[in-house]
Amino acid sequence: MRPHPDRLLGIDAAILRIARELYESVAAAPIISPHGHVSAELLADNRRFPDPATLLITPDHYVTRLLHSAGVPLERLGVEAAGAETPLTGAAAPREIWRTFCEHWYRFAGTPVRYWFEDTLARVFEVDVTPSAESADELFDALSGRLAEPSFRPRELLSCFSVELLATTDDPTDTLEHHRRLAELSDWPTRVVPTLRADAYMTPGTAGWQARLERLAETAGVDCGSYLGLLEAIRRRRECFRALGATATDCGVADAWAVPLSDERAQALHERGLDGSITAEEALAYRRNMLFQFGLMAADDGLVMQLHAGVLRNHHAPTFARFGPDTGHDIPAPTYFAEPLRELLNRVGTSENFRLVLFTVDETAFSRELAPLAGFYPSVYVGAPWWFLDAPAAVRRFRAAVTETAGFHKTSGFIDDTRALCSIPSRHDMSRRLDASYLAELVVGHQLSEQEAHTIARALVDEIPRNAFRLDRNRERLD
Amino acid sequence: MRPHPDRLLGIDAAILRIARELYESVAAAPIISPHGHVSAELLADNRRFPDPATLLITPDHYVTRLLHSAGVPLERLGVEAAGAETPLTGAAAPREIWRTFCEHWYRFAGTPVRYWFEDTLARVFEVDVTPSAESADELFDALSGRLAEPSFRPRELLSCFSVELLATTDDPTDTLEHHRRLAELSDWPTRVVPTLRADAYMTPGTAGWQARLERLAETAGVDCGSYLGLLEAIRRRRECFRALGATATDCGVADAWAVPLSDERAQALHERGLDGSITAEEALAYRRNMLFQFGLMAADDGLVMQLHAGVLRNHHAPTFARFGPDTGHDIPAPTYFAEPLRELLNRVGTSENFRLVLFTVDETAFSRELAPLAGFYPSVYVGAPWWFLDAPAAVRRFRAAVTETAGFHKTSGFIDDTRALCSIPSRHDMSRRLDASYLAELVVGHQLSEQEAHTIARALVDEIPRNAFRLDRNRERLD
Amino acid sequence: MRPHPDRLLGIDAAILRIARELYESVAAAPIISPHGHVSAELLADNRRFPDPATLLITPDHYVTRLLHSAGVPLERLGVEAAGAETPLTGAAAPREIWRTFCEHWYRFAGTPVRYWFEDTLARVFEVDVTPSAESADELFDALSGRLAEPSFRPRELLSCFSVELLATTDDPTDTLEHHRRLAELSDWPTRVVPTLRADAYMTPGTAGWQARLERLAETAGVDCGSYLGLLEAIRRRRECFRALGATATDCGVADAWAVPLSDERAQALHERGLDGSITAEEALAYRRNMLFQFGLMAADDGLVMQLHAGVLRNHHAPTFARFGPDTGHDIPAPTYFAEPLRELLNRVGTSENFRLVLFTVDETAFSRELAPLAGFYPSVYVGAPWWFLDAPAAVRRFRAAVTETAGFHKTSGFIDDTRALCSIPSRHDMSRRLDASYLAELVVGHQLSEQEAHTIARALVDEIPRNAFRLDRNRERLD
Repeated sequence: MRPHPDRLLGIDAAILRIARELYESVAAAPIISPHGHVSAELLADNRRFPDPATLLITPDHYVTRLLHSAGVPLERLGVEAAGAETPLTGAAAPREIWRTFCEHWYRFAGTPVRYWFEDTLARVFEVDVTPSAESADELFDALSGRLAEPSFRPRELLSCFSVELLATTDDPTDTLEHHRRLAELSDWPTRVVPTLRADAYMTPGTAGWQARLERLAETAGVDCGSYLGLLEAIRRRRECFRALGATATDCGVADAWAVPLSDERAQALHERGLDGSITAEEALAYRRNMLFQFGLMAADDGLVMQLHAGVLRNHHAPTFARFGPDTGHDIPAPTYFAEPLRELLNRVGTSENFRLVLFTVDETAFSRELAPLAGFYPSVYVGAPWWFLDAPAAVRRFRAAVTETAGFHKTSGFIDDTRALCSIPSRHDMSRRLDASYLAELVVGHQLSEQEAHTIARALVDEIPRNAFRLDRNRERLD
Repeated sequence: MRPHPDRLLGIDAAILRIARELYESVAAAPIISPHGHVSAELLADNRRFPDPATLLITPDHYVTRLLHSAGVPLERLGVEAAGAETPLTGAAAPREIWRTFCEHWYRFAGTPVRYWFEDTLARVFEVDVTPSAESADELFDALSGRLAEPSFRPRELLSCFSVELLATTDDPTDTLEHHRRLAELSDWPTRVVPTLRADAYMTPGTAGWQARLERLAETAGVDCGSYLGLLEAIRRRRECFRALGATATDCGVADAWAVPLSDERAQALHERGLDGSITAEEALAYRRNMLFQFGLMAADDGLVMQLHAGVLRNHHAPTFARFGPDTGHDIPAPTYFAEPLRELLNRVGTSENFRLVLFTVDETAFSRELAPLAGFYPSVYVGAPWWFLDAPAAVRRFRAAVTETAGFHKTSGFIDDTRALCSIPSRHDMSRRLDASYLAELVVGHQLSEQEAHTIARALVDEIPRNAFRLDRNRERLD
Repeated sequence: MRPHPDRLLGIDAAILRIARELYESVAAAPIISPHGHVSAELLADNRRFPDPATLLITPDHYVTRLLHSAGVPLERLGVEAAGAETPLTGAAAPREIWRTFCEHWYRFAGTPVRYWFEDTLARVFEVDVTPSAESADELFDALSGRLAEPSFRPRELLSCFSVELLATTDDPTDTLEHHRRLAELSDWPTRVVPTLRADAYMTPGTAGWQARLERLAETAGVDCGSYLGLLEAIRRRRECFRALGATATDCGVADAWAVPLSDERAQALHERGLDGSITAEEALAYRRNMLFQFGLMAADDGLVMQLHAGVLRNHHAPTFARFGPDTGHDIPAPTYFAEPLRELLNRVGTSENFRLVLFTVDETAFSRELAPLAGFYPSVYVGAPWWFLDAPAAVRRFRAAVTETAGFHKTSGFIDDTRALCSIPSRHDMSRRLDASYLAELVVGHQLSEQEAHTIARALVDEIPRNAFRLDRNRERLD
């Protein structure tokens, strides 16, 4: 099915007319992507993508989880056992994966994967073939042909997509060498900035915590054997990230509780983490204190704090044991923000330097807590709908739930949150269409003038994310 | 008000055009009803229904609860005191009940009761009179006249409704004699299958638990004085049900926690249940272990496990004491699934034999937990909107909440869940209209082709429920 | 932007046609406002409003919170330090406040503040200027001119708005002298009735509790040094309020738990509240018992019990310390009703004298708990969407969530809940438009006849609130 020019813009003729105009006015605007998972190394190396399955199926857990839910084992999708050396290579295996995907294409009807995929095939690959058991080989060959072209290398794609800024997500121990290489490119217009994500350092007692601390100590040049040492190491890494253009950090936690501990108590727990005697409850207290400390650091150095709360990670332990994380069974949990963040916001919520972007996969939090918090605290912004919620109907519900309480200017602007590089334009385009449609509906319902709607549509792809993520602030500082 | 041919299909002309075509293509498809509360005895006996009130008002707690909320005492609606011998009989009383209902007809505006009732009057009874104080007697007489006709006996009605399969809900001690009588009928096309529901055996300390165990012991031929004996008895009854065509069990619990106990611990609690010393907390632990054990049984014998979680039963104790259960004051509670079912799904969630259909009356769970679980676990299906949620606007919210994450093929297909036999075609028809409308909206919004929409509309009334409830699997096994 | 005559009525032509008719039939109906925060003193004194900022900006925390969220300090909006003597006066300061508001006007796009403001400017002030930095002074002068006219005094405005009944919200120690003065006015048609709100007396250990008890003891003539004394004092004040026309009480609590204590236990906690030794947990138990006792009083004296549950008050402690309560940082919390109110409803839920109107700012409770409770208990009504939820899209979600389970007649009718006197007609008008639109949609979707829709639209502004708040009952009693 060829993507229709009016897709997602609306159904009513009056809405459609205005939504088209709004959409057209921003359709070609440069893409600002302040949160995502494309790797800097991939961009710095700029190697060709091997084949369609390795690019589009295997690494995308949006795709693999639905195939798995239909009874396809992850092995048949090229997902590698945790700790394995290299991804599957060779023509045969990817072609098999691709066939499996195409046979199950009908199961994606009504999902955003279907929408993005179709859009990407048309927009990026300029291929007009509907996936099916019959068309699988033809499609595989056509896409493979395109991937062999020089214009399909990662950096060329991002330029072609008009990506002005792309934020990666990086471990504090990342040396940022790839970001440095990218910054030195004089002939490539995209600005790639790192984002520090220190989740793995927050919870003692988890596998690899101690090893991570040792690596971090080495990178930061600070001993992490103590709690205060760990804080100092993270602080220093934030500074290094900032020097390389970072304007934000990210943090993903099971809940949003930020509860300070005394240094003494935190140090005691740190030691019990190191000697393996820490209990689950103590580890939780340690993590919640770390979230609080990250907040204080953000209020101090001005890096925007992104908080992604409320996901039960790795729900199916056997799959996690075999294939590792991000394999499609992270499940949203009921999520609360107002009470959990109260102490942190009482401390720094009105501090000018502090900025907090809150993301939820429990959509009940949008109207209940996120919009009211963003509607009072100057520091708080409502993050765009994320993960399961970055789909047309969910995005509509998001705007309907948030706007009446927080307006447009206390939302973050669209976040693609993707490692699927080729889908970036499709995702941003989806968001622009949906915002155009939402604004057109307000215009037709006589709640907004057409001119205002145009101003807001433009702001949503430009000044709103620029402001929420302080993209110009750091730039100025660096210039 | 005469039901309009386009009801619920949509409002926009383009949607309406496509929805009509989709609806027409499935309007006459046979009805598959894999979960409901029509009694097998009623069908086996096939007696005429006594009168409109006894058929349509008194036993339907959807109707009586709203009348009660308007200040009508349940006695005036023919609801009998708990433990009373027989329902009210005689012409006078039912006519009074009917009048009360008709006087309050305006209070049902906007509710599904109003929709089903009107639809049923027109579709089944071919009567075109709007209920009111004035029309009550005329309507009563007209309906009584129809009920006296031979074609209005239960089995004739089901044939006339094109019900291909009807699942009943039955106690493990049910001898299934009525199901046997029905299976022997050579000239009646509907397949009636039992569904085992063992809720009442899960919680020691509740009234009648011990007596139930004794009756179950007798039926199953296994002593239920021990925990393992109870498990074995239930296992045997499941096997008997399966032999008579059952493909599923049902389970209704206040929460979805499934937490295993050691056999020793379970046995200790069992004993304290029998001697009356069990605490509420222990009884809860026992119940949650039973839910876990039912899951293991399902993974073993392949009977589909239906789970209806999250209802505070019998909220108003005085009404419960006087009139018994199912009298309109079961109230939904906040309901969670991901964490409560984690241990069970870790054990059998990817086992090929296991299948779990999850139902909620807390609609926040649809997008937050049910769709993500069904979008990963091959065993998990999202149950159709149930109870308070099986109404037009709620069904639309259900599809909007679930489809983007789980698609159509990991939902259960429509469930009528009713003891109101005459409303069965109206309920399924409502679902077919709403699905047609939802699909048409995706088509007009350019997210789906018309041809795909037709394929999905058909699947939703046929292969999707057949697959979710393994309706053909057991049939094959039996043939 | 000039308000369009069709605003909020719908977009589809068929819906719009019917919604217009429905709206027109109730647009001019007298306003019944059974819950709000206009002060009786303001009406009794009937002084002119000083200036637009003091009238429309400073006291409205819907407005100030969004400006604060944009980084404007509350001081710059005229909000006074807690405990300060008088509000800002003089021309200069209000004009500055007004300019700040106008400069930030674009931030209100999509919010109800924008909608009400625009509507009020046109409807009440007959001014057609869009707020902006440029127009701020012109607008300030134009509005100041209108406020100087005699017809813009508070009582004249209410008459002009056709307010038939207005309920205020009052402390139990209020002498009601202003209500008495208003009742004596022979030439003013609005009926102003008090509403007793005793929140501040429920929780020992909070600042000022003891001082309040002393004042209450004086007003009521009953010693409040004991728990039973406090109950008796409140009972007497309820009687005084009732004698002056009150038909309801109000109660705002962080959660809806109503849990009785023995008199002995309550007395012990009362004493610990007085001597300052009470713990947070004990204070909570005391409060939950008080809510239960208020329920019993309501079942006794027949005053309608309004319950506004689920708000975390004064989230930002520094702002509270500096500016006091109601300064824009009350944040909704997850809210439950069915289990918390079970014991109270088991006691008085079917008692004829008892009536309970339940309000929530957690909209998940509408379909999950409030509609099911109101759909069984004769005493329970679903309160109109409140606070963050009294905005167009949220109101639409409310009707969609509630109607299918509880119908229209177990909802409360619209509540403006405002201290912004000038916005009263705009708020009620908004509600009438949205209900007309909702009803029109049911008509066009063939779920309701046009005639029924007319009857319901009329009932929603007349007999439904009259009945829910027993407005005629008390009147009869008094006559």
